[in-house]
Amino acid sequence: MITPRRPGPSVRTRVREVGPAGTHEREDRLATEEPLEIRCAWPSSPARRVAVTMRTPGHDFELATGFLFAEGVLAGSDALHRVAYCTDQTLIPEQEFNVVTVDLAVPPVRVPAPRYAGTTAATSACGVCGTESIDDVLALIDGHQVRADQPVVEAAVIRALPERLRSAQRVFDSTGGLHAAGLFDVSGEPLVVREDIGRHNAVDKVVGARLLAAEAPGAPVLAVSGRIGFEIVQKAVAAGVGVLAAVGAPSSLAVDLARRAGLCTIGFASADRFVTYTVPERVGV
Amino acid sequence: MITPRRPGPSVRTRVREVGPAGTHEREDRLATEEPLEIRCAWPSSPARRVAVTMRTPGHDFELATGFLFAEGVLAGSDALHRVAYCTDQTLIPEQEFNVVTVDLAVPPVRVPAPRYAGTTAATSACGVCGTESIDDVLALIDGHQVRADQPVVEAAVIRALPERLRSAQRVFDSTGGLHAAGLFDVSGEPLVVREDIGRHNAVDKVVGARLLAAEAPGAPVLAVSGRIGFEIVQKAVAAGVGVLAAVGAPSSLAVDLARRAGLCTIGFASADRFVTYTVPERVGV
Repeated sequence: MITPRRPGPSVRTRVREVGPAGTHEREDRLATEEPLEIRCAWPSSPARRVAVTMRTPGHDFELATGFLFAEGVLAGSDALHRVAYCTDQTLIPEQEFNVVTVDLAVPPVRVPAPRYAGTTAATSACGVCGTESIDDVLALIDGHQVRADQPVVEAAVIRALPERLRSAQRVFDSTGGLHAAGLFDVSGEPLVVREDIGRHNAVDKVVGARLLAAEAPGAPVLAVSGRIGFEIVQKAVAAGVGVLAAVGAPSSLAVDLARRAGLCTIGFASADRFVTYTVPERVGV
Repeated sequence: MITPRRPGPSVRTRVREVGPAGTHEREDRLATEEPLEIRCAWPSSPARRVAVTMRTPGHDFELATGFLFAEGVLAGSDALHRVAYCTDQTLIPEQEFNVVTVDLAVPPVRVPAPRYAGTTAATSACGVCGTESIDDVLALIDGHQVRADQPVVEAAVIRALPERLRSAQRVFDSTGGLHAAGLFDVSGEPLVVREDIGRHNAVDKVVGARLLAAEAPGAPVLAVSGRIGFEIVQKAVAAGVGVLAAVGAPSSLAVDLARRAGLCTIGFASADRFVTYTVPERVGV
């Protein structure tokens, strides 16, 4: 009998390092990259495949939950019945921890379209895969608007975010290969921080963590370690975030969408400085 | 009459910067993120949609050509008939420079599967979108092996790559938001360097540039500014690269695949040091 292997967030490997002091062999750790298939079921509807994403194992239930929320399929934590690894008898043991089924307590807000049903694989950095077109993603955001009463966040809080995000990253220091996302309160205290090889997955994980804890999916601040592409804006707006702050730069489409949705976007966040692209009045200076 | 707007690689925006010297408003530039639809046609077969990718405009023909090569659809430059922006009368003016059709001179090596035909959108960081499953991507690599006679690259050449890549990036300095990929010869001279908001697109662009110049798609070295995910390995192996060097870290799956295909992978490349994960004998020290 084969015991299923539960994949970890990193794996060991032997490397050869060439540095100023010469060449030496040593052990290193790599961020794990494995596919996760996300399935969704609801009363009187069998589980169907919604997406496959390349992810770093760990917090898989949060990832699946956050993904379905961002996609407009899951309304909120009240609509969740159960999230579990699939126990389908047809799965080979290697797949057991790479398939998660989200059982909804009620029919979905938006039925995963047939295009999701069995033919689409997404990747770690991908929030659009499986949608009919970019227009579908834009449509996801069009119904949402950031609430005007979102709190003002002080500049000192923004400047402290990168270090707070980094210090909460446990795997990063061992692999150097993971993105982080974190939800923070208005005083900069972390509510939840998650890591993943994919930027979008890390965001889905923090939102999913909140939903699985039966809390509101958003928070005053979402901080991310990478760039801001348009899907990150879409996920932030869907979750009800007020300020999206990144260590990297936003794209043109990200800034367009954030402006339309009333989301404050910040790039190049560091201990010294940051740049505000949209809704600057939500930053206190 | 509306004159179609040809999108540029960056756009201007007003920002508010908070720094050590206080707060000021200034102009900034954002990396453009727009969808590109890639279509493919061949004798007696009309153009069909193969993929939609979020990309930074510029070198769109190279991107479409390199993408189809990596996907195993295009055999090589001999199989190319014509690459052009689509002149479909049904396109609205805004779409005119966001749809590229690659006309093959001969039937494709591998027909884009029906799953590609009209229902799939990929994103900027995505090489798997639209494939049936991860297995399909693994199958793309399984037929390929890096030639054992690929040249040894000296450690000094590897250490110089990040700076050479960076100095060839023209847009980066104005937006801070673009990835770069470059093909280099064995002495570290750049053959072609391209930028994109998506890591995979930058790789497709350099490979496509070589194909459109009727040259071999690969080179002794492919250098990338970001991480190495498994799709970057797949694209490097398909192109016939010997050494893949990144400023960031590789993933577990990337290292697995590179080992199987005989590709030398290097991470954390800098002027001081680098780490070799696979095929270390292809690096001269």
